[in-house]
Amino acid sequence: MSLTDLFDPDSIAVIGASQTPGKLGNDAMANAKEFDGPVYPVNPSGEGEVYGYEFVDSVEDTDADLALCCVPAPATPDVISDCGEAGVGGAVVFAGGFAESGERGEQLQEQIRRAAQEYDISILGPNTAGHIIPHRSVFSSFVPGFDDIETGDVAVIAQSGGVGVTATFQLDREGYGTAGMYGLGNRVNTDFGDVIPAVDDDPETGAMALHIEGTDRFDAAVQAIDEASTPVVALKSGNRVDEFVQSHTAAPVQAGDHYEQELTDAGAVMAESMTELLDASRVLSTCPTPAGPNVGLVTAQAGPGIMMADYLEERNVNFPALTEETRERLDDILLGFTYDQNPVDTGRPMPEFGEVIDAVGRDDNVDIVLVYEIFEHSLGYPVEELEQFTSEVDKPVVFTVAGPSDALAEDRQRMEDLGVATFNTPERGAYAASVLAETSR
Amino acid sequence: MSLTDLFDPDSIAVIGASQTPGKLGNDAMANAKEFDGPVYPVNPSGEGEVYGYEFVDSVEDTDADLALCCVPAPATPDVISDCGEAGVGGAVVFAGGFAESGERGEQLQEQIRRAAQEYDISILGPNTAGHIIPHRSVFSSFVPGFDDIETGDVAVIAQSGGVGVTATFQLDREGYGTAGMYGLGNRVNTDFGDVIPAVDDDPETGAMALHIEGTDRFDAAVQAIDEASTPVVALKSGNRVDEFVQSHTAAPVQAGDHYEQELTDAGAVMAESMTELLDASRVLSTCPTPAGPNVGLVTAQAGPGIMMADYLEERNVNFPALTEETRERLDDILLGFTYDQNPVDTGRPMPEFGEVIDAVGRDDNVDIVLVYEIFEHSLGYPVEELEQFTSEVDKPVVFTVAGPSDALAEDRQRMEDLGVATFNTPERGAYAASVLAETSR
Repeated sequence: MSLTDLFDPDSIAVIGASQTPGKLGNDAMANAKEFDGPVYPVNPSGEGEVYGYEFVDSVEDTDADLALCCVPAPATPDVISDCGEAGVGGAVVFAGGFAESGERGEQLQEQIRRAAQEYDISILGPNTAGHIIPHRSVFSSFVPGFDDIETGDVAVIAQSGGVGVTATFQLDREGYGTAGMYGLGNRVNTDFGDVIPAVDDDPETGAMALHIEGTDRFDAAVQAIDEASTPVVALKSGNRVDEFVQSHTAAPVQAGDHYEQELTDAGAVMAESMTELLDASRVLSTCPTPAGPNVGLVTAQAGPGIMMADYLEERNVNFPALTEETRERLDDILLGFTYDQNPVDTGRPMPEFGEVIDAVGRDDNVDIVLVYEIFEHSLGYPVEELEQFTSEVDKPVVFTVAGPSDALAEDRQRMEDLGVATFNTPERGAYAASVLAETSR
Repeated sequence: MSLTDLFDPDSIAVIGASQTPGKLGNDAMANAKEFDGPVYPVNPSGEGEVYGYEFVDSVEDTDADLALCCVPAPATPDVISDCGEAGVGGAVVFAGGFAESGERGEQLQEQIRRAAQEYDISILGPNTAGHIIPHRSVFSSFVPGFDDIETGDVAVIAQSGGVGVTATFQLDREGYGTAGMYGLGNRVNTDFGDVIPAVDDDPETGAMALHIEGTDRFDAAVQAIDEASTPVVALKSGNRVDEFVQSHTAAPVQAGDHYEQELTDAGAVMAESMTELLDASRVLSTCPTPAGPNVGLVTAQAGPGIMMADYLEERNVNFPALTEETRERLDDILLGFTYDQNPVDTGRPMPEFGEVIDAVGRDDNVDIVLVYEIFEHSLGYPVEELEQFTSEVDKPVVFTVAGPSDALAEDRQRMEDLGVATFNTPERGAYAASVLAETSR
C-alpha cells in the first residue's frame, strides 16, 4: 500500500462538501481550495459552487485519488466503498465515534478497515484533524486558518490531531512554517510505521517531530525511526493518565519508560514538552551535525549567559577550555577586559562581537557554538561574520536572540537562512545546544 | 534614605547627554524624553537641543531630583558629588568598570559610595541597564526601544541588567508590558532589601519577578520578601559557574540551595527559567489566590490535555474527583459522550464549552480551573460565560490558548481583562496552574 495518493495526490474530492460556514464539509473545502490541481466538492444535494468549485453528485464522477471524508461515522463505511469503486487510493476520515468510543464504534472502524483493504485505500484516521503539506499545496484538514500556514523545515507527525494542530500554530506564531502536519488519529491502517518512511522520503522535511500516545504497531514505528535518514524528535505522552488516553485515540496502555528506551535506542531525541519537541526539531533540521558534544558559549550580556551556563551544567553539557591560540586571539579583540574563559562574555554588544564568535567557533576544542546577544539597533547582529564562518566551518551555531522583535526580525531571518538556528529566551537557546550535544554522543 | 527621587522623580537630569546617535548619553536621552516633567540634558560642551530639550552646562543649573549618569567610571565620583551639591536625591550609574572589574574599580565604587552617603543619594548601579516604570513615564535606561514598553502588572527586579532587559522585551513580545524593570547591577547602596519594599508599595505592581545572583545583604532581601504583600517569584542564577558570576555583578559566591530554602521560606515561588519567572509572576498578579491546591482541568482537545495532565501529575498536582452534582450537570451538557472525569474533555470546541468550564469551576472539590482550547473562528472563546463565572466565583482560571494568533488575540485580551490568566503552549498553562497550587499550600 503506497501513501502517494494520500500525501502527494493529483486531485482531491471533498465528500460531504457544504456551502454552510462552520460545517465540517465547508471548513475542509476552505483548506482544500488551495490545492494546485482539481478539487471536487462531492454532495448529491449540493447546488452550484463552493469556493469556486462546482458540486458533483458522486465521487465516482471524479478522477480523485485523495478523498476527504466529511461525513459522520455511521456513513463512512459506504463512503470508503464508493471511493474504492471510484479508484481513490487515499482517504482522510475526520469523524470521531470509532474505536475510541466503545463497541459500536469499534465495529464501524472494522468495517472501514475491511473496505480499505478490499480496495487498497490508505486511510488517515479516523478521528483525525487530517494533514497539511504546504509545499505541495495539500491542505487536507478542517482546521480554520490552516490554508495560511507556510512551508517550513519541520514535519509534525502526531497521534493526536489536537497536538498536531497546536504544534502547527505554534510554529506559525513564531514565524516558521511546516514541512507537513500529519494527524494519525485512530490509525486504522496508516500508522507511525507507514508515515515515518513516507515523510523521510520527502526532501523538504529537515526533521520529524513525533507525538506518540501508544500504538499496537510500536515495533514498526521504532524500525522506521531506526531506518530514517531524517533526524527524529519524539514526545511520549499519556504516561500517567492511562484511562484518559484510552478514550482519546484508542491507544493501548503501555509503559512510557519502555517506549522512551526503545525510541532513544532507535536514534530519536526525547522531548518533554511541546516547545522542546519543536525546538529540538528546528535545531536538528537547521544546523549541521556536530562532531562532538563540546559547547563554546559566547555572550554579550553576562546575566543571561550565566543562566544558560547553569542550564547546560545541570544537563552535564561540557564547556571545554579554549586553546591557547583562541585565548590569544580573544585577548587581542577584547584587550583583556571581561570574562574570556568559556563562557566568553563581552559585557555588551560591540562591533567585534562577530569576531569573538568566529574565534570561539574555530577553536579545536569547540564542536557547538552557542551565542546570546540582546539586539542593539546601532550594531545589528553579526550576520556578515556568521556568513563567512558558516561558509568555512562546518559546526552548528545556535544564536539566542532578545530585544525588540520587530527590529531584530530581519537579521534573525538572515541568520536562519545561513543555517544558524535562532531561539528566543536563554533556556530555549541552551536547550537547543544541549540537543546538539546529545545527538553527537 | 528614600527611593522616591530614584523611582518617582519630579524632574530628570541626563549627565553626559549627547546628540550623537549610538552614544550612551544619546540613548539615555531617547528614553528619558518620554518623561512627563522637566528633562535636562547636561553637557558643558553641548550646543542647542537634543530630542527637543536644551542643553544645560551643569546639573547645578537644574532642579533635577533624579540624575542619569552617562559618563565613564573614573568621572563618576565627581559627578555624584556635583549631583549632591545640586540637591539630586537619586542617581542611576550605567557605567561598568567598578567592583566587578578589579582593584581600581573597587576604589571607584568606594568613592561613589562615600559621596552618595555624604549627600544622601540613592544610587542604582553602577554597572546597570537602569530602570523603567512606564506608568510613571520614567525610562531611566540606555536600552534602545525601552521607550515603547507599555504598562503591565509584573515588575522585574534583576541583579543583571541584561536579564532585566531580556525579561522586559519578552513580556513585550508576548503582548504584555511591565509595572517596572529595576536593574540593580553592583548595588553600591541600593539592594534588593531596599528596592523590594519600594516596589511592594507601588499599587500598579501585581507581582515581583526577582533575578538574584548573590548579595552580601541577602538577609535584608529575605526580610523584604517576607514582609511584602505583593507575590514574589524568584530565580536564583549562577549556582554552578561561580567565577563567571563573580566577574559579572561583583556578587559573593554563595550556595544556591541555601538561597532557595530561605527564599521559599519567605514566601517566594522559585522559578527555573526566564519563561517560568515571568509566567509565574503573570499568573500570580492576574488571578485570585486559590483556597486549595486542587486543579479541575477542562480540555476541548484531548491530546494537549493529556500532555498537561502528564505535566501536572509529574509535579504531584492533585486532580480531585468531581462531585456527583457536577457529574450530573456535565452529563446533561455532554450527553455522556467523551471523557467526563477530571480532566473533563469535550473532544472538540462546542457552544457549550463555557458551560462545561462553569460546571467544573463551581465544583466544591476544585480550587483552580485550568482550560485548554484551540481557537475556532465560528465559536470564539467563551468570554461571556467566563465573565459571569469570574464575577460570581472567586477561583483562579488559567486559560491555555492555541490557534491562529491574530484571530484569537481579541478574545484573549478580553479574558485577561476579566482576571483570567492566558498562556500559549500546554506546558506553560500547566506550569501556571502548578504555581497556583503551590502558593495555596
